[in-house]
Amino acid sequence: MSGNLLALPDDMGGTTERFEELLCRSGFRIERIISSGQASPPGFWYDQDVAEWVVLLSGAAELQFEDEAAPRKLVPGDWIDIAPHRRHRLNWTDPSQPSVWLAIHYR
Amino acid sequence: MSGNLLALPDDMGGTTERFEELLCRSGFRIERIISSGQASPPGFWYDQDVAEWVVLLSGAAELQFEDEAAPRKLVPGDWIDIAPHRRHRLNWTDPSQPSVWLAIHYR
Repeated sequence: MSGNLLALPDDMGGTTERFEELLCRSGFRIERIISSGQASPPGFWYDQDVAEWVVLLSGAAELQFEDEAAPRKLVPGDWIDIAPHRRHRLNWTDPSQPSVWLAIHYR
Repeated sequence: MSGNLLALPDDMGGTTERFEELLCRSGFRIERIISSGQASPPGFWYDQDVAEWVVLLSGAAELQFEDEAAPRKLVPGDWIDIAPHRRHRLNWTDPSQPSVWLAIHYR
């Protein structure tokens, strides 16, 4: 299996984020996510049972943790290891360009 | 834990590749590798006990599999899932710029 993480699908431009599973193995899975201006709904927090190691590969985003006062502004290359049940939300993704993420969900 | 995969260490420019472990969990580990013009020695083949999912994030490289006639030219975003014991070597990495890899070694 091979591919290119930065190659965009032909049917980009919808109103939802795109999720694409690249590898799934016991204990972890690798996923590509493409945001195009989406943000978490007001008041919504991700509260995940599994840990997530995530890196922004292109674009720009703002990630807010409930336990931090200020949001984190993310630029390409920025990675964060998010512990299970650490509540967070996506305040903003750049609407002018695709934001490509690589996420590793693990137990 | 957080960081930036594209941020280069202050002491770049040595003659060896740099390996940096970012996460190590049961069954897999995440590593950043920075090549700066290195290639595998003539006749050398990687023959790894564990699988490796690897993506080139910046720079350029040429990856050769023993079971393929032609090498694969890799550009940023290109990922490959390499099965255990699939023999491969790095023919070339661009000497004019750092080539940053993200590798996930897994069982």
